[in-house]
Amino acid sequence: MIPPALRERLRAILGPSGLVEETTDLAPKLKDHRGRYVGRTPLALRPASTEALAAAMALLHAEGIAMVPQGGNTGLVGGATPDESGDQVLILTERMRAIRALDPAGDTITVEAGCTLAEVQAAAESIDRLYPVSLASQGSCTIGGNLSTNAGGVQVLRYGNTREQVLGLEVVLPDGRIWNGLRALRKDNTGYDLKQVFIGAEGTLGIITAAVLRLWPRPRARAVAFCAVPDVEAAVTLLARLRTAAGEALTAFELMPEMGLSFVLRYLPGSHRPLATVSPWYVLAEIAAQRDDPAPLLESALEAAMEDGLVQDATIAASESQALALWSLRESMSDAQKPEGASLKHDVSIPVPAIAQFVAEATAAVATRDAGVRLVCFGHVGDGNLHFNLSQPIGVEPSAFLARTAEFAEIIHDLVHAHQGSISAEHGLGRLKLDEITRYHSEVELDLKRRIKTAIDPRGLMNPGKLVKP
Amino acid sequence: MIPPALRERLRAILGPSGLVEETTDLAPKLKDHRGRYVGRTPLALRPASTEALAAAMALLHAEGIAMVPQGGNTGLVGGATPDESGDQVLILTERMRAIRALDPAGDTITVEAGCTLAEVQAAAESIDRLYPVSLASQGSCTIGGNLSTNAGGVQVLRYGNTREQVLGLEVVLPDGRIWNGLRALRKDNTGYDLKQVFIGAEGTLGIITAAVLRLWPRPRARAVAFCAVPDVEAAVTLLARLRTAAGEALTAFELMPEMGLSFVLRYLPGSHRPLATVSPWYVLAEIAAQRDDPAPLLESALEAAMEDGLVQDATIAASESQALALWSLRESMSDAQKPEGASLKHDVSIPVPAIAQFVAEATAAVATRDAGVRLVCFGHVGDGNLHFNLSQPIGVEPSAFLARTAEFAEIIHDLVHAHQGSISAEHGLGRLKLDEITRYHSEVELDLKRRIKTAIDPRGLMNPGKLVKP
Repeated sequence: MIPPALRERLRAILGPSGLVEETTDLAPKLKDHRGRYVGRTPLALRPASTEALAAAMALLHAEGIAMVPQGGNTGLVGGATPDESGDQVLILTERMRAIRALDPAGDTITVEAGCTLAEVQAAAESIDRLYPVSLASQGSCTIGGNLSTNAGGVQVLRYGNTREQVLGLEVVLPDGRIWNGLRALRKDNTGYDLKQVFIGAEGTLGIITAAVLRLWPRPRARAVAFCAVPDVEAAVTLLARLRTAAGEALTAFELMPEMGLSFVLRYLPGSHRPLATVSPWYVLAEIAAQRDDPAPLLESALEAAMEDGLVQDATIAASESQALALWSLRESMSDAQKPEGASLKHDVSIPVPAIAQFVAEATAAVATRDAGVRLVCFGHVGDGNLHFNLSQPIGVEPSAFLARTAEFAEIIHDLVHAHQGSISAEHGLGRLKLDEITRYHSEVELDLKRRIKTAIDPRGLMNPGKLVKP
Repeated sequence: MIPPALRERLRAILGPSGLVEETTDLAPKLKDHRGRYVGRTPLALRPASTEALAAAMALLHAEGIAMVPQGGNTGLVGGATPDESGDQVLILTERMRAIRALDPAGDTITVEAGCTLAEVQAAAESIDRLYPVSLASQGSCTIGGNLSTNAGGVQVLRYGNTREQVLGLEVVLPDGRIWNGLRALRKDNTGYDLKQVFIGAEGTLGIITAAVLRLWPRPRARAVAFCAVPDVEAAVTLLARLRTAAGEALTAFELMPEMGLSFVLRYLPGSHRPLATVSPWYVLAEIAAQRDDPAPLLESALEAAMEDGLVQDATIAASESQALALWSLRESMSDAQKPEGASLKHDVSIPVPAIAQFVAEATAAVATRDAGVRLVCFGHVGDGNLHFNLSQPIGVEPSAFLARTAEFAEIIHDLVHAHQGSISAEHGLGRLKLDEITRYHSEVELDLKRRIKTAIDPRGLMNPGKLVKP
């Protein structure tokens, strides 16, 4: 598949540690995070610089060889796994992990694609700044992957998605040319904003090798509350109340169901129920402030909400360790589904005013189809992002439940679509939802996406079979 | 040029008031805001709905007729003026000005392209929300124009440019198809983010007909300070101090020179010098807060800055009318140059840490070329955006100074480029900077822009001669 002469030229460009040819070394990288896809590759490239990557990609492009970029391999839609043909070369960014610049005066950081999110957060902290994107996988996911999937996380409500953090990009185009768009400007209107095209493109238009990211002032204090709310509608009303009271200082507003909380309490060591009140729904809200302790503000807002029946019971963390304990309940919700058997996950977003109705309709639709399904619907209600997850009925075979993936996806995603929501809020399309999206996007939208793909990758060599169909 | 039969079909689609054929009625729309360009057109379309516009554009596209969209005609780079050929049909959005939806629960507003910015601000205020983009021309500029130029303004430091306000778009494509991307979602990762391609495209890829925009909580109180600073470097250091102290609550940070202030005091009725101290540079800083009066915070931060020699003198507005008076000094700076004769304007941005050095170098370079030029360099330092304007030497002919436009642009823009800045921070390229940008952008970048243009407007009928060369 890869002629020996080409292999030698690649080795000359990338150096001896720049090629991985042993399939055993590659095995973990050929399987996606959730174990749904296992691919093959003739070899993997590990470039140490943008220039080396560019030279290698120019060669592969000339030979018509498809390329699959991979960062931390933590994606949930199979976007970084080569297909089963064995024809697609895997490109790993793991050796490109320099922090190129750290600029407190300009509030920016310039990083290479292979840096982990945690490394970028730590570098920002070293100059007393915040890089606000925060994800469960931050220790292993890379900035390149974050950029290519427009990663979200728990603080989008205040700081936006990864896209909103980007001031400039460096990209190697499919044919090996380098686009140097590494600007550190907050205002620049000199033509189409090219970086936007590559952000969230899941590696189908080129490989992002470096980025200039915005940094933020670090909040000095936070207040975290855990509230019992009677229903989803009350949660949405409470969100509006807190936004009005705290403005952008409302950093997070997370919804959790009693079903999810009970799973977490069962499996998370040291966890305990934060409120005496058992309620069908809970909210975790956080306000972060630049100077003053925001707890009094949160307290008075919650008191008013209790008087109006929006909140039945609430506790505000009295210390940072209590705050972490409350957050760990929320952060363990996905993992706590695992011991309960198979689960079907739906990463959706809904316009905030329609969330309550959507949850009611989707809950009813799932129960009608199978009354034993245990619903664990939680997520970032502040951004309209719900993880509408289904845990299998007790006693059924996990594989039998997984076999119903498409059936439940259609039920839930049709309702999402009816409420003008998105069937992939933060995970992307990858390979998993490539077919499904054609059911929900208009022909005009699909056509525009194909046109962009063809314009920038006319030979279709970048991550084929992901995000956009030819 | 437009065959009578086509004219009749257009009239049938758009209605009798949907066509303007009398050149006298069109005259103001055929001349750009600064009077640099005067174009011709065979007729102007005034569609009242997206569907009517789409039907009309499909006809024009089939006939190969070029189209020039125009909003409030307040642009500064000739982007909305047809060329002199008389072959380009002008498309006016002035009848498409419905507020389609106003959603306090979701913090969004859905508006049609022809709404003025002031109308959108007022609609947001009617539900106790803020639409944060604010420009001098807000009474007449339209949202469609704001979107197509990614308008900035005075609050970008806190809220971002127009791009950052957009959740969804509706666009009529060059061939008359409608792309309905009117989503109200903060998280949506289902393929290339198409709306980003149309924002800032200056009407070269289609016509934006409606948008879903984000709304923000309205700040309840603001504190405005006017400070004398010894030099630009002190101003930049003060910016970092205030960002650290106030976080995102720092809404504006504007730099002004004594030369500009003296012009304003000369021509603005009722204006007076806000400080006894005369200094080469001044800063206007604003902190806005959700609840508490931010004046004490601003005061203590400025006191510390005075102790460190960053600020020589300062005043904090004691009332809203004093705040408005301070702001009017800043807002009159551009107009106050007019009575002083011809001026050459440079709307540039520079990475914040390089601003002081850029200003020093550009000031020296201009003085070397012509010691009589009076420099009025002011702007949104918080975003790195400077209006590096030159007023003519006293006593020379205005036309002789204007004849040196290219000479001074090259001096200043070469320095901007050397500091990795942008030669158009917020005004766009339009027709004015179409040639000039090819001097500063790489061949790779120019090629990518051409590819996007060709992909979406293959016949080159949308606003030809603007933003991107074929």
